Amino acid sequence: MLDADRPDGVRLSVADARALGETALQRIGYPADEAAIITDQLIDNALCGYRFASLPRILAIAEDEKTSRPRTAVRIVRETPVSALIDGGNKVGYVAAYRGAEIAISKALASGIAVVGVHNSYYSGRNAYYVELMVRAGMVGIHTASAKPHVLPPGGRRAALGTNPISIGFPSTSGPVVYDIGTASLMWGEVLLMARLDEALPQGVGFDAEGSPTRDAAAVAHGGGVTAFGGHKGYGLSFAIQALGLLTGAAPQDYGFLFIAIDPAMLVQDFPARMAELVARIKATPRRVGVEEIRIPSERAFREREQRRREGLVLDRKVVDALNAL
Amino acid sequence: MLDADRPDGVRLSVADARALGETALQRIGYPADEAAIITDQLIDNALCGYRFASLPRILAIAEDEKTSRPRTAVRIVRETPVSALIDGGNKVGYVAAYRGAEIAISKALASGIAVVGVHNSYYSGRNAYYVELMVRAGMVGIHTASAKPHVLPPGGRRAALGTNPISIGFPSTSGPVVYDIGTASLMWGEVLLMARLDEALPQGVGFDAEGSPTRDAAAVAHGGGVTAFGGHKGYGLSFAIQALGLLTGAAPQDYGFLFIAIDPAMLVQDFPARMAELVARIKATPRRVGVEEIRIPSERAFREREQRRREGLVLDRKVVDALNAL
Repeated sequence: MLDADRPDGVRLSVADARALGETALQRIGYPADEAAIITDQLIDNALCGYRFASLPRILAIAEDEKTSRPRTAVRIVRETPVSALIDGGNKVGYVAAYRGAEIAISKALASGIAVVGVHNSYYSGRNAYYVELMVRAGMVGIHTASAKPHVLPPGGRRAALGTNPISIGFPSTSGPVVYDIGTASLMWGEVLLMARLDEALPQGVGFDAEGSPTRDAAAVAHGGGVTAFGGHKGYGLSFAIQALGLLTGAAPQDYGFLFIAIDPAMLVQDFPARMAELVARIKATPRRVGVEEIRIPSERAFREREQRRREGLVLDRKVVDALNAL
Repeated sequence: MLDADRPDGVRLSVADARALGETALQRIGYPADEAAIITDQLIDNALCGYRFASLPRILAIAEDEKTSRPRTAVRIVRETPVSALIDGGNKVGYVAAYRGAEIAISKALASGIAVVGVHNSYYSGRNAYYVELMVRAGMVGIHTASAKPHVLPPGGRRAALGTNPISIGFPSTSGPVVYDIGTASLMWGEVLLMARLDEALPQGVGFDAEGSPTRDAAAVAHGGGVTAFGGHKGYGLSFAIQALGLLTGAAPQDYGFLFIAIDPAMLVQDFPARMAELVARIKATPRRVGVEEIRIPSERAFREREQRRREGLVLDRKVVDALNAL
């Protein structure tokens, strides 16, 4: 998934990549402020090394049938000082979940803690992006996203759970730390890509539309599904995230974005310094021969981001051409 | 881990088992109200099929060097309408975490949401027990527990993380649903038991005190450790739970019990009915040949509990004798 230099690549400054994304999104009907919100995440995903979660997503948004349906403003349906239920107005998750994270932050800044749920939306991209927003506002952030079924429960022949990511982030004096995983054994985007490239899936993770095990990515992509990561523990986590999605007002097997923001200062002093101490202690674990360093969640991504901010981004020429042609 | 009938077993009614536990705990210095709280969980663990998390734990509590140190009352150090930081007073986690869950419930009932952290305590037993308390009060509950190091980070030669369980529970009209896992690849209690029985650990999960891979449970138990479950995703979750422990006021590599209680009615109507619908939908997933049912987290445990409540508990005679001899 790393964004390496490629012969068919176009190197763009961050500013040029941003302009490319915002212009393309405005051409498919997103107003300037929303185009900026969406592009900001897509650029950040590219900077962090998630090439397929970057500007190519605009092409996927353009093709999605939900994009052609009417959109209304993202609005708060119900709220208290510590909570909000948000109707995403059929706006793509990049926008609706962003508003959810913003509202969770402002309520937690005022009340110490907040829980916010967003429904009537789809596809919110990379969860760590929203959690980092919360973390940069000083919060410990938890974010889960339920989705349409792509994951089979153990013993099942049909997908019943989403790829259901969870992200948990922490402010520290040595920089934000953000855990972010999908609970499927493969990202669904990876499955789709492997189907396009005719690559075989790893053994034991894929099932076709009949529920039979297969390594054929195309068969998985067309009505099949994958296992959860980590056996029954991962399945249970996926199930719990699907259930947390119900707090957002989403239907049982639909997209639901949940945010919990906690101001750590309400509980302990100097949380960011304590967090930096934990990171330093874990990193100081004696290493096995040949191991260069003990990794902390998000460390690799944030380090790459610093480098790419200086060096710019490399995009596929085909993607650049397709975005310009929208 | 199932509590099967055993030739060296003593069958006790729930009431008799409760009296046995409470009496033993009072003899080692716990007042009647705390002995009742501890025993209630130990009995529940046995009813749910967790034999080793049951009355034998009283023997472990009696032997623990922390039990011999001075104890003070569990007290709230700092609080807001939505939070509490609790000093466990060196009381065993069964008592201190119970107070934490109680306070989380009462604050969430009043404010809609609450976060509570407990430090200066140790060993709280089975996380699902506390989460079920929250769920039976109508809350969606999240509970994590950080602990002393028993888990090696990938590439590490020494344990740096606790076995760090996470539990997430939901009220439903078809009964509580509680997800509860440890993030270690084996429960530490299992490792200790296998060391005692001279059993070999599964391949690839254990390391000795030097950080070398081993299947020798005794070598792992004496200064070694195990991997996290589920590869880097499980490691990251373990790391995040260790970090959440910092919100409790615990030191970076010590016991910290965190509770988040959310009143679902603040966000959506009829959460318990929606939850029952999700459970029904997942259970209705078409099954592979030979699969009797699609399982939901906690379903097996709660079903066994109903049966054992009627049939009573079977305890090892040695355990009963040792408890009577305390």
